[in-house]
Amino acid sequence: MHIRKQRLLTPGPTPLYPPAMQAMMASDIHHRTQDFRNIYTAALADLKDVLGTSNDVLIFAASGTGAMDASVSNLFSPGDKVVVCSAGKFGERWVEIAKAYGLDVTVLKAEYGQAVSVEAVQAALAAEPATKGVFVQASETSTGAAHDIQGMAAAVGSTDAILVVDGITGIGTMPLDVDGWGIDVLIGGSQKSFMIPPGLAFLSVSKKAWALSETATLPHYYFNLKKEKKSADLGESSWTPATSLILALGEALKYVKSLGMANLVANAQLLALAMRAACTELGLELFAPDSPGSSVTSILAPSGMDSGVIVKELRTRFGAIITNGQGSMKGRIFRIAHLGYFDFWDLFAMVAALETILYSNGIPVEFGKGVAAVQRVYAYAAIPTPIAVP
Amino acid sequence: MHIRKQRLLTPGPTPLYPPAMQAMMASDIHHRTQDFRNIYTAALADLKDVLGTSNDVLIFAASGTGAMDASVSNLFSPGDKVVVCSAGKFGERWVEIAKAYGLDVTVLKAEYGQAVSVEAVQAALAAEPATKGVFVQASETSTGAAHDIQGMAAAVGSTDAILVVDGITGIGTMPLDVDGWGIDVLIGGSQKSFMIPPGLAFLSVSKKAWALSETATLPHYYFNLKKEKKSADLGESSWTPATSLILALGEALKYVKSLGMANLVANAQLLALAMRAACTELGLELFAPDSPGSSVTSILAPSGMDSGVIVKELRTRFGAIITNGQGSMKGRIFRIAHLGYFDFWDLFAMVAALETILYSNGIPVEFGKGVAAVQRVYAYAAIPTPIAVP
Repeated sequence: MHIRKQRLLTPGPTPLYPPAMQAMMASDIHHRTQDFRNIYTAALADLKDVLGTSNDVLIFAASGTGAMDASVSNLFSPGDKVVVCSAGKFGERWVEIAKAYGLDVTVLKAEYGQAVSVEAVQAALAAEPATKGVFVQASETSTGAAHDIQGMAAAVGSTDAILVVDGITGIGTMPLDVDGWGIDVLIGGSQKSFMIPPGLAFLSVSKKAWALSETATLPHYYFNLKKEKKSADLGESSWTPATSLILALGEALKYVKSLGMANLVANAQLLALAMRAACTELGLELFAPDSPGSSVTSILAPSGMDSGVIVKELRTRFGAIITNGQGSMKGRIFRIAHLGYFDFWDLFAMVAALETILYSNGIPVEFGKGVAAVQRVYAYAAIPTPIAVP
Repeated sequence: MHIRKQRLLTPGPTPLYPPAMQAMMASDIHHRTQDFRNIYTAALADLKDVLGTSNDVLIFAASGTGAMDASVSNLFSPGDKVVVCSAGKFGERWVEIAKAYGLDVTVLKAEYGQAVSVEAVQAALAAEPATKGVFVQASETSTGAAHDIQGMAAAVGSTDAILVVDGITGIGTMPLDVDGWGIDVLIGGSQKSFMIPPGLAFLSVSKKAWALSETATLPHYYFNLKKEKKSADLGESSWTPATSLILALGEALKYVKSLGMANLVANAQLLALAMRAACTELGLELFAPDSPGSSVTSILAPSGMDSGVIVKELRTRFGAIITNGQGSMKGRIFRIAHLGYFDFWDLFAMVAALETILYSNGIPVEFGKGVAAVQRVYAYAAIPTPIAVP
């Protein structure tokens, strides 16, 4: 027996922001009171602020998948033609949801680790002018790849279709200019860059998306965007809100505002850059080298080694919880998260721990070599004050 | 602005054990109820268990200094001859307390960074057979040095004097066999190896110490060992107890019991060993090389550098709170803590951060070199399963 702290370091739930957790202790509040309306209204306003949009923003007591469901069931009709960009498990989820609601789905598939190109979307839209919607992940966390959302928004913006972006792990890890680029629906979840536990889903709705909702005929009840918008305007949620999580969200949003969304994104990007540098030093191969996102760095286990060994030993040796690959990628890759409440201190320790585990499994690594790569990136980035670089 | 987590890494308050903090939420309990008596009784029993003694153990709502005060005011009379081993700021505190109560104090002084020898204690006791007590720190956290408590107990045990040990940072960082060695009073505090916030002091009282209390005439009121013992036997504290801290202590003690006190000590000792190895690699000089304790590693700032720069940059760059030297050691040394809830993951990051700070201040260090020394100690120690050592 030795001391082994529990460390939640997955791409969701992400590490928790302590003041947000402490705020949950004030949950002895009723949701149909002015006190709570003030808290809810402030959270909605701050959420709009950090998402940088003038579009309506709504919150649901649900996981992110709930908001994905809502975007389909509220904005489309049976048989509507839609395009899904699928580059991993979450792209496949878009396909499942669209099919569950009887949409006519064209799937643009990329190999795991690759991204769907803007050109493929342009071609699909040109081939089917009646397309009503394009669905995509900003960041496909299952593989570590990211999509060119700006390019896709430009392609979709000139058509009658709307662009629905699952930004659950994209928000806070890449620039997402909702209004400037024209993202019609942007979906987020509480347990990602917002640094609080799972249970809240958000989405922004553009005028173009609202217009589509007027003719949409798919059935829905709990996830009712129009009803939720009316409730939100009164400072309430339609159904009982997850009050403890709203309190946590309010506190976390204050922190994200104080950081600035651009800095939150830069933080994840810099950590991802440092992790990739460490991989180069340690001879580890990236799974998504061509379009790497910054929510996670997906790394191939060294030849002959099951990635589950790395995941397991990080837990048994260091109490650190990271994620294996999903589906067919299980055993092949492991994923180091960067989104939300992560800093260089975390990464120093992660890479040092990873080095010891690789070494213990017969992989030739020189202790401290990957850590040094992270230290050099830290020094280059010169935060908060410059360091001359070795 | 970048993400910079707050990390409390000082030798007290030490990092907090999360389940203990969560237990404090159940503080809506009254202290004169059977529910609380059950909790208090269990905490006292578990405390005796982890301290490994059959002596009485008492808890006060006070800082550790309160228990130091209690040991003097309850067990001695004005003019009593006592010996104080003083090797730093906490040794000086024993002198202050003894003088405040009018004892006749012989001070055995060691230079900062050194320890008082058993031979010096033997000589003092031989020179003054009427000595009633010997006071010492097990671990002198201000300098990083530790005393030979087993040797001192043997020296004192053959006389009429009692041995009063400030084990505030010694408990959990070095073996302290209360009954086997004959430690008459052993003092601890909640905010050290017990991993909870400050506010509770403990002490164990031997039969020899109780006997002394029968003739002691110094005045006291709040700190009344006999009264407290009677209360404790009824499952209560004499005055209002710090209920939230007792709840936290109960939870922390369960954890320490599950670890085993010997493993808690081994954990701190191994981290201290690894930190010393890192210092060697980085060319850093230890402040207490001859009798280093494992509660902290005290390190001299590189020549020409103020240790406060290291303390400040750990805070501003990484949110990590460590301690400077105290008194005349301020600016000369910095102290890396190991006692309580610390693990190798913490130390990997600490050494990597320290390397970047040294480098940024013009000290020639090779990135990752100190970290590699920590990794090698981790590998040698083979926790929880062996790793062949590079």
